Amino acid sequence: MDPHIASVPLDKATRLLNHGPTVLVSARHDGVDNVMAAAWACALDYTPPKLTVVLDKIAKTRELVEQSGMFVIQVPTAAQLELTYQVGHRSLSSEPEKLADSGVELFAMDGHDMPFVAGCSAWLVCKVLSELHNQQAYDLFIGEIVGAWADTRVFKDGHWHFESADPCWRSLHYIAGGHFYATGDALDVDTGPRG
Amino acid sequence: MDPHIASVPLDKATRLLNHGPTVLVSARHDGVDNVMAAAWACALDYTPPKLTVVLDKIAKTRELVEQSGMFVIQVPTAAQLELTYQVGHRSLSSEPEKLADSGVELFAMDGHDMPFVAGCSAWLVCKVLSELHNQQAYDLFIGEIVGAWADTRVFKDGHWHFESADPCWRSLHYIAGGHFYATGDALDVDTGPRG
Repeated sequence: MDPHIASVPLDKATRLLNHGPTVLVSARHDGVDNVMAAAWACALDYTPPKLTVVLDKIAKTRELVEQSGMFVIQVPTAAQLELTYQVGHRSLSSEPEKLADSGVELFAMDGHDMPFVAGCSAWLVCKVLSELHNQQAYDLFIGEIVGAWADTRVFKDGHWHFESADPCWRSLHYIAGGHFYATGDALDVDTGPRG
Repeated sequence: MDPHIASVPLDKATRLLNHGPTVLVSARHDGVDNVMAAAWACALDYTPPKLTVVLDKIAKTRELVEQSGMFVIQVPTAAQLELTYQVGHRSLSSEPEKLADSGVELFAMDGHDMPFVAGCSAWLVCKVLSELHNQQAYDLFIGEIVGAWADTRVFKDGHWHFESADPCWRSLHYIAGGHFYATGDALDVDTGPRG
């Protein structure tokens, strides 16, 4: 495994998503891997950590999630802007070479038979908590986070370090079309005793 | 109404949340108003537009949402950093003057008997789509967006203009403790014809 990748304690896992980044969702079933982009993913709970993600019925990745009951949420970086846009706009159904054509390289994490996207800043392996009404009525999936990792060049000791890392590590925040914003400056409130 | 505030077409309303900002949730019932901060809010659907928000059982605002069936999601700005932190860490139950002490000024929007927080960049009035299982098991509320507005100094013609607006208009992205990031630089993908 890449020596820069370190596991993140599960009780800190939601911090990887708190800033609202656009994520990549990947899944594997029966020898098929796919990766999609999702702007609509969000932390849901701390203990055990959970998240929500919206997966449209036309998404091939959704089929793989439903079949395998597992998925990976990963946080792409500014360096992966083009990759993120491409996996969000190409479909594996019509483009069998979607992943290669989008520049996606997959890697393995020990003990998890899942497709992890190389070059991201964080990875969250999730087990689907089956909620068929939400899935059918709202395309809303709930995942329990069962493993979390981050690249220590940007997330270390339970904290993001965007302010000191190279700007290429900033997260992406999708708006529409080809338009994103990067995560910006740190803003800190003085949390000392209140007057 | 403030001449800078303009309504946003409902089919563009999710753009106000796509970049994953920390939001303020406000609600009113039986003469009581409250405002809380929530990092866990997310768009859910385009038509009709919907969103999700996690409201903990200890939150007084949640009671008002459950009683009235309505809430407002608003997007605070970097200029409201301290306000956002304060409404997220003070409780109306123990501090009756929470809103005034946190610097919150409420205003009215024509036709909506709801508490809107002045100085935000965007406002979304939501009607609770009652899903008792989600609310009880996950503290997860689904709202249908029935009205949307933005301050035209930062969101106009269906687009955020963070790159040209004063930095005080940037959105906030909460991590933990007193630590936030502002929305950062625009990143654009060339969406022209693919080769």
